[in-house]
Amino acid sequence: MGEDKHHADYANISSSLSKEETLQHILDSYSALASDTTNWVANLSNCSSLLWHAYHSLNTPVNWAGFYVRSKPEELILAPFQGKVACQIIKFGSGVCGTAASSQKTQLVPDVEKFPGHIACDGETKSEIVVPIVKDGQTLGVLDLDCLDLNGFDKVDQEYLEKLAELISETCDWTKL
Amino acid sequence: MGEDKHHADYANISSSLSKEETLQHILDSYSALASDTTNWVANLSNCSSLLWHAYHSLNTPVNWAGFYVRSKPEELILAPFQGKVACQIIKFGSGVCGTAASSQKTQLVPDVEKFPGHIACDGETKSEIVVPIVKDGQTLGVLDLDCLDLNGFDKVDQEYLEKLAELISETCDWTKL
Repeated sequence: MGEDKHHADYANISSSLSKEETLQHILDSYSALASDTTNWVANLSNCSSLLWHAYHSLNTPVNWAGFYVRSKPEELILAPFQGKVACQIIKFGSGVCGTAASSQKTQLVPDVEKFPGHIACDGETKSEIVVPIVKDGQTLGVLDLDCLDLNGFDKVDQEYLEKLAELISETCDWTKL
Repeated sequence: MGEDKHHADYANISSSLSKEETLQHILDSYSALASDTTNWVANLSNCSSLLWHAYHSLNTPVNWAGFYVRSKPEELILAPFQGKVACQIIKFGSGVCGTAASSQKTQLVPDVEKFPGHIACDGETKSEIVVPIVKDGQTLGVLDLDCLDLNGFDKVDQEYLEKLAELISETCDWTKL
């Protein structure tokens, strides 16, 4: 990084960028940051910050941006995030995050109230997208974004966030999970 | 938790509380949340959220609230936080965080520009407090708060944040650090 550039500047994202440019900024910034370390906690912590600030630069009212990781064979535990305090433990197959973890398929949920067995960590959340992070056929965790509006996310978000989940899978050392 | 209470409600803190009451709310909420899990990543993730929302309820312009943990014998690595993207690796003895880690003493810094060797992750930070987290004489990590104002923190913050660091040391399983 140049002498006048601070790490925080990765989170200063122009609101004049298109949605695709903003989402590409997340991918590029994540890659640059992950070239410094393979530590998964450090990388997911900075990635949560990138996601939070990128979506806010798009005026999407994201109220939670972060991760759950696999702690036991069929259980997720809370990992780095930005937003309000969250549920710590989610069983595979339970709610939106648990369904993404067990099915290894992205869950794009326009209205969380209509999702069977939705777990409400925050009663204000209206829509959600959860993308599984997979390596060698195993679920490592999930990337989770919540929004205060209905229909907060679409296929464009899904496309870029799935690329981000792949990058995350490849760039981190997962042996200490 | 009662049926109508969500985890996010721990971060909904009345702005009518005194500073001492707000800081006590952090301690009480952290203890309640840590009774569910000893996972250090989950506990520091929720703790960062508590700190962020508590200081914002006091109208203190905290721009970073979170943690670094020991990764190698004399090195800190970025851990869960709320705020903008941050530096990933800090050597013991380097900057405010590294000094707290090596000295095992709280660093209360009214003006970061006057701290010898200050590492600027964000050029906007004006003041900082860093509290070491110690167990059995070993530094496990540091709790770090940055503020956009000079003199953002005082001895009252130090008192409560040192109690929080003790709670964190006691309540987490640190074997997978």
